[in-house]
Amino acid sequence: MSKDGILFDRVTFIGIGLIGSSLARSVKKTGSAAHITVCDINQAHRDKAVELGFADDASGDFIAAVKDADLVVICTPPGVCGDAAAAFAPGLKEGAIVTDVGSVKQSIIHDVSQHLPDGVHFVPAHPIAGTEHSGPEAGFAELFDGRWLILTPPAGTDETAIAKVRTLWERAGSQIEIMDAQHHDMVLAITSHLPHLIAYTIVGTADDLGEHLKQEVIKFSASGFRDFTRIAASDPVMWRDVFLNNKEAVLEILQRFSEDLTFLQRAIRWGEGDKLEELFSRTRKIRREIIEAKQA
Amino acid sequence: MSKDGILFDRVTFIGIGLIGSSLARSVKKTGSAAHITVCDINQAHRDKAVELGFADDASGDFIAAVKDADLVVICTPPGVCGDAAAAFAPGLKEGAIVTDVGSVKQSIIHDVSQHLPDGVHFVPAHPIAGTEHSGPEAGFAELFDGRWLILTPPAGTDETAIAKVRTLWERAGSQIEIMDAQHHDMVLAITSHLPHLIAYTIVGTADDLGEHLKQEVIKFSASGFRDFTRIAASDPVMWRDVFLNNKEAVLEILQRFSEDLTFLQRAIRWGEGDKLEELFSRTRKIRREIIEAKQA
Ligand SMILES: NC(=O)c1ccc[n+]([C@@H]2O[C@H](COP(=O)([O-])OP(=O)(O)OC[C@H]3O[C@@H](n4cnc5c(N)ncnc54)[C@H](OP(=O)(O)O)[C@@H]3O)[C@@H](O)[C@H]2O)c1
Ligand SMILES: NC(=O)c1ccc[n+]([C@@H]2O[C@H](COP(=O)([O-])OP(=O)(O)OC[C@H]3O[C@@H](n4cnc5c(N)ncnc54)[C@H](OP(=O)(O)O)[C@@H]3O)[C@@H](O)[C@H]2O)c1
Repeated sequence: MSKDGILFDRVTFIGIGLIGSSLARSVKKTGSAAHITVCDINQAHRDKAVELGFADDASGDFIAAVKDADLVVICTPPGVCGDAAAAFAPGLKEGAIVTDVGSVKQSIIHDVSQHLPDGVHFVPAHPIAGTEHSGPEAGFAELFDGRWLILTPPAGTDETAIAKVRTLWERAGSQIEIMDAQHHDMVLAITSHLPHLIAYTIVGTADDLGEHLKQEVIKFSASGFRDFTRIAASDPVMWRDVFLNNKEAVLEILQRFSEDLTFLQRAIRWGEGDKLEELFSRTRKIRREIIEAKQA
Repeated sequence: MSKDGILFDRVTFIGIGLIGSSLARSVKKTGSAAHITVCDINQAHRDKAVELGFADDASGDFIAAVKDADLVVICTPPGVCGDAAAAFAPGLKEGAIVTDVGSVKQSIIHDVSQHLPDGVHFVPAHPIAGTEHSGPEAGFAELFDGRWLILTPPAGTDETAIAKVRTLWERAGSQIEIMDAQHHDMVLAITSHLPHLIAYTIVGTADDLGEHLKQEVIKFSASGFRDFTRIAASDPVMWRDVFLNNKEAVLEILQRFSEDLTFLQRAIRWGEGDKLEELFSRTRKIRREIIEAKQA
């Protein structure tokens, strides 16, 4: 696929928050689409997208928005991707490609596919990049630069459609990995969903302390706590949906985590310093490997 | 106390790793001491301190190192502060001030005080600043700039000694807070010790996965996990000591955390999205307060 020039005549974004607006900015910047339409339930977000210049027009009407679209990118919270697909599917033209950016894959594939007519190609995708901010103003074209993009196309997905979606993301600077949706959901449960759950929990535990103690926790947060608060400031609706839609994998990895935590708790109670030191030395190595993998 | 000029004729650092070398650099830079001696069990660290220029001389002999010192700063791992004090105490001169930088306070006060002769003043301190790196090369003079320094002097501690230690840290850029050692240990259990324990646990859980899955976790760590690996790369010996020496407060806050995590686990299992969203919205607020408190 060529390195620049138009990839799709018309691209429509459904949901134009952090991720949607970042990709739209990149598509604009790389000239990959002749025309960008955005559709969002939030009028202010639609207006902002046009004002900021990365959308050519905007609409609250799902069917009108996807009319003539060669590519439709669903960028809503994970729990409503299916509803969005149900709303726009009747407007899709034959041969259109639909993709998404959702943080869980099995449930979105299930929710979206059932609404798509024959002759439309669905290429599920997930960019491993983000921030704790939301909305169209939080986005920026470089968000995906040097980051991974995981594609999870079900067996039999049209190869040309996969290649075109792949190129779109490569132009945004992403490296591409293809994997099975179930495997994706397990890997992400470990690298992303459990860390977020833990961060939300610990910040919640602190929030439940009396007001005076809480103020001190905020004051002295530089000693570790504040790193968790950044993660725990992520979008509540998106994360609610992630946990509800990747329940099995999250509960499985959470069970392992709880066992490991109980092991450390016991080591602390019984003063078993060697067990603590052994683990703390092992975890240091993983950090080095992440730095070597240039993901730090 | 004056803003610059010599505060102490001779200062001796016991342990010259990240924190000791950072403070020594600051003391040099601000001209707060006429002479700096370092004492460390690690010969390479002693040599490095002199080579890097923030120590005037170095010794492996604890008694010789503190001879004539007006201030002795203990910067060893928390678990050996008492041993270090036992080793150098016989060399202290009448009226000398001893301070430390340990991350736990009650146990260090207990371990150190018992060895100090009458006429020596002990002013326990804890800088709320650090990195995941260790050793004298990891230090830098600006580490404490704009960060908190907590003093936990027991009732009856000499006011002049407190004021001098306070000034030393103010010159390093720190803001000073005075609190009771027991309260310190509870606040830090929440803001620092529990976050580190959790981070060590989750990185350990990932390390126990099969090699293939582990490589994928490293690859896709940008989605949350990597922030935990930075914390879990902190010094194993120091952190072993922290948990062993602040056992009660850590176990108490860990118990609360576990209950809260179980509550979320149950909400995920039963699909109670409202409970998840309610918590995730609350935690977002704390982040804002930390940003407002300029601790982000
Ligand atoms: N944030 C990350 O770090 C990250 C990383 C990788 C992937 N993702 C995935 O990216 C997707 C979007 O996340 P985001 O962070 O960009 O969220 P966001 O900033 O909140 O944007 C979502 C946008 O979709 C709109 N919307 C909500 N329901 C809709 C519906 N039924 N139809 C049309 N528009 C709707 C929202 O409007 P309102 O604001 O009015 O609700 C908002 O404008 C999610 O699937 C998420 O899993 C996120
Ligand atoms: N790191 C942080 O983020 C942080 C923040 C606030 C407070 N603190 C506190 O600062 C203190 C030092 O931590 P750090 O991060 O600076 O550790 P570090 O970089 O490992 O430095 C500790 C130094 O003390 C030496 N040492 C070990 N045992 C000794 C002994 N018995 N006598 C003399 N020297 C000895 C070590 O030598 P070896 O390397 O050969 O063992 C090393 O040179 C700890 O009490 C910690 O609680 C740390």
